Amino acid sequence: MTDHARALVVGIDFGTLSGRAVVVRVSDGAELGSAVHAYAHGVVDRHLPGRPGQPLPPDWALQVPSDYVDVLKNAVPEALRAAGADPADVIGLATDFTACTVLPTTPDGTPLCELPEFADRPHAYIKLWKHHAAQPQADRITEVAAKRGEAWLRRYGGLISSEWEFAKALQVLEEDPEIWAATRYWVEAADWIVWQMTGTYLRNACTAGYKGQYVDGRYPSESYLAELNPEFTDFPATRLDAPIGELGQSAGTLTAQAAEWMGLSTDVVVAVGNVDAHVSAPAAQAVEPGRLVAIMGTSTCHVMSGDVLREVPGMCGVVDGGIVPGLWGYEAGQSGVGDIFGWFVDNCVPASYAAQAEERGISVHELLSELAAKQPVGGHGLLALDWHSGNRSPLVDHELSGVILGQTLATKPEDGYRALVESTAYGTRLIIETFRNAGVPVNELIVTGGLQKNPLVMQIYADVTRMPISLLDSDQGPALGSALHAAVAAGAYPDIRAAAASMGRVVRDAWQPNESDADRYDALYAEYVTLVDYLGRHGNDVMRRLRKIRREALA
Amino acid sequence: MTDHARALVVGIDFGTLSGRAVVVRVSDGAELGSAVHAYAHGVVDRHLPGRPGQPLPPDWALQVPSDYVDVLKNAVPEALRAAGADPADVIGLATDFTACTVLPTTPDGTPLCELPEFADRPHAYIKLWKHHAAQPQADRITEVAAKRGEAWLRRYGGLISSEWEFAKALQVLEEDPEIWAATRYWVEAADWIVWQMTGTYLRNACTAGYKGQYVDGRYPSESYLAELNPEFTDFPATRLDAPIGELGQSAGTLTAQAAEWMGLSTDVVVAVGNVDAHVSAPAAQAVEPGRLVAIMGTSTCHVMSGDVLREVPGMCGVVDGGIVPGLWGYEAGQSGVGDIFGWFVDNCVPASYAAQAEERGISVHELLSELAAKQPVGGHGLLALDWHSGNRSPLVDHELSGVILGQTLATKPEDGYRALVESTAYGTRLIIETFRNAGVPVNELIVTGGLQKNPLVMQIYADVTRMPISLLDSDQGPALGSALHAAVAAGAYPDIRAAAASMGRVVRDAWQPNESDADRYDALYAEYVTLVDYLGRHGNDVMRRLRKIRREALA
Repeated sequence: MTDHARALVVGIDFGTLSGRAVVVRVSDGAELGSAVHAYAHGVVDRHLPGRPGQPLPPDWALQVPSDYVDVLKNAVPEALRAAGADPADVIGLATDFTACTVLPTTPDGTPLCELPEFADRPHAYIKLWKHHAAQPQADRITEVAAKRGEAWLRRYGGLISSEWEFAKALQVLEEDPEIWAATRYWVEAADWIVWQMTGTYLRNACTAGYKGQYVDGRYPSESYLAELNPEFTDFPATRLDAPIGELGQSAGTLTAQAAEWMGLSTDVVVAVGNVDAHVSAPAAQAVEPGRLVAIMGTSTCHVMSGDVLREVPGMCGVVDGGIVPGLWGYEAGQSGVGDIFGWFVDNCVPASYAAQAEERGISVHELLSELAAKQPVGGHGLLALDWHSGNRSPLVDHELSGVILGQTLATKPEDGYRALVESTAYGTRLIIETFRNAGVPVNELIVTGGLQKNPLVMQIYADVTRMPISLLDSDQGPALGSALHAAVAAGAYPDIRAAAASMGRVVRDAWQPNESDADRYDALYAEYVTLVDYLGRHGNDVMRRLRKIRREALA
Repeated sequence: MTDHARALVVGIDFGTLSGRAVVVRVSDGAELGSAVHAYAHGVVDRHLPGRPGQPLPPDWALQVPSDYVDVLKNAVPEALRAAGADPADVIGLATDFTACTVLPTTPDGTPLCELPEFADRPHAYIKLWKHHAAQPQADRITEVAAKRGEAWLRRYGGLISSEWEFAKALQVLEEDPEIWAATRYWVEAADWIVWQMTGTYLRNACTAGYKGQYVDGRYPSESYLAELNPEFTDFPATRLDAPIGELGQSAGTLTAQAAEWMGLSTDVVVAVGNVDAHVSAPAAQAVEPGRLVAIMGTSTCHVMSGDVLREVPGMCGVVDGGIVPGLWGYEAGQSGVGDIFGWFVDNCVPASYAAQAEERGISVHELLSELAAKQPVGGHGLLALDWHSGNRSPLVDHELSGVILGQTLATKPEDGYRALVESTAYGTRLIIETFRNAGVPVNELIVTGGLQKNPLVMQIYADVTRMPISLLDSDQGPALGSALHAAVAAGAYPDIRAAAASMGRVVRDAWQPNESDADRYDALYAEYVTLVDYLGRHGNDVMRRLRKIRREALA
């Protein structure tokens, strides 16, 4: 092993369209070089590769496993070159992945889609996180659990998502029993890539807990599973039967083949898999209870560790060691954030604004943000609900929808834009207050993701939440978080906390709430909560009825 | 007098920006020729004519009386030429006007603004209907009347508008007492133009009732007026003291000077003044109880005669003979209709739509209407409230504002456009149901105004109201209505009913409700009513509080 001063680790972040490798110095977390490799097949949502005559149904989203291996082969050597690094200095490697992204394999981990006899079978491929075709199965999984009063359901805010392991597995069983029969393991891609590198299959505690319904050391009972489908009774025993790996634990060292792919030594230690959102928390030094990390992009994922187990209404999950070993990892979510702003820009902003932005060489987002930033709080007279993609936390209701209230003939596009930004900030405050009311303290708000670069958004979030906002000081937070786990797995630090202290990067209190603006936002937030109760908690179920009328109209 | 078969009348409609004269055949209402003359000074809302250094305050809107006379001098002879008419065949003339448009005059009807000593005094000019600077006075007029329990207030739905005679007069008194002292008469422009033509000053029953608080033969009491302002006590006795003229009654014949202006004989009979909305009703043959005429433009004015006097919540006014002598004339209103659609097109539709419309050589309104017309009822999943300019009937609340509810990331501009059109149709249905619930039957819906040309709007109104829609078959409904009154005043018909039967023009049942669409709209209308009750009838006063916060923020 190289001396600590020169030691390097590689963090690899597997996203939806590409993988990014970052070379990081162990001593201080400096990011020395990075490289991105796009997946050759991207998201497979129209037809299987090379089979245009065989279109996929709506809501399907698949991936091709060799694309992930290509990231190892290409992005890692490139990142090393970009860093000017001596590969011999690399002591560890770790990965994070989208989740739940999951595939069926043979006993040795070969994806079924790589077997010639199954290459034309959609269910043999990787189901990407945003594969939403298992909704009927997810609905039954939730309903039957609720009916039976399964205690584990409360750990997931009362809702099992169609994106998760059980729903996607049940879809395979019910739609392609032959693939199901050939499936030895139902493997998270996060774990599969580690298996490819080390020859060892461990289920990481994060995805097993958040996506695999693994609660207090157990999967759902056989009697419950039998009620979903008798053939599903033995699913955990026959297809999820792998040891659990703690985050930051070593899964082993590189195989000769994997070492050759990347130009690294077979001494390199590989950490167990992890998830892009959760791995970011230690990168932002959020390893103590109460530090809430908001990963803000098209949607927002909130992750936070706590030293108490509480039932928080509408959370996405609480998992023992789900973020940091030894603490309860809480996850909550806002279904729509940046994508609402994007929808507004694409659909609700007139030509004159587009022309003005183009003339000034800025984006329409920038123009609207600039105009909106000039307004006093409350100056537009609007109030919006951020439910364009439904509400995950705390209402857990996909049938909810967006609202803008307060428009007059003087309402301008920047008014609506600002109101939508504010509505997402109110949504974040509602989640924070839900945690606090359930007895889980929230002491600090740390933001990462694309939206941290928008000053309007950041100031509004500080004012609305009345909390200073810290920023993860990296454009590649997940990869940095993975690097940190690599350092722990390789033994350079005793645990995640120590690694986070040295390698994590956070700008503390980058945005401060303005007291008088925060006072006015208190009044506006109270209005938001009143509308949330009325439209979201069955005061008036008009949104659900509009959905029903819509479905009937379009049927 | 010429023989009946050749007899002609002239109807003149004085609008906000121009006046239109139409030559109409008495025997059958055929419109033979018309001409428009724009007011040289338009709407005076920046500074007095020729005085750019003297800007007007916000919310002011004035006009210049000579502009109206120029319409007589120019549009009438032009219309006669266009009609190929022999002026000797003209037996009568009648006018309609915007209201309340009102001015101070000397004893002989000379506008104070035409006196050299007052030419630089804004309060000496005509206050146009949309002069909104008398709101503080209007607020006191309503509040004091409500406090004292003045019975007449109920005839106006509980609200006296800042647009009306008393508020505008009180503003003059309180802001320019010298002009007030010089004012012998406070004259509706509708009556002033008749005075100019005949030398006779009559106050027409329509504006005296709807705009002048003349109820059951009396103005508000002196003790009430004294409470508003001691100097205002004698306002009716000293400045409104003119006889009331019934609609369709003769005010006299043309003076030599007026005859010369227009190239007509001094035998021509001139009818008492009238108002653009109300005069349209007989043109659409709406002279029987229960025929509701909706004049649909930027806003909608509803006028209907009834044979019973009832208190209908939120109506704009009920006036004895206010539309047709011998019946109670009811007026209701929707503050915003076409201007909401215009606001949406100007502020909420992206460049791609503008480009597509331009490429196809159609307006954005037409493009959106076409796309929206393809949707099934309820297909967009939206529900809107049409309160962008507040709500006049039945809620009488200017503090209300617009709402769009139900948006998702898939919501398109045509969805919002259709939802707004529907919301105004729900608003019309709410007015119709308010009339019916108060015991005033509504049997027929007749539409006139610019929006009658939009097939999407018309079909939605038919479906939402579950009533066939008839159309006034003229592009110049008010002028035709005036012509009809001219024929009555000239004695060609015994009364308005007889004239309407011969000269009125209506396409009966031009639009029929689609039963299954109407069924679905019943469900959506029920949702609208629930939201109206919640947000408009103090279930949640969030809109009023947002206005207050806005005012404070912008102060």
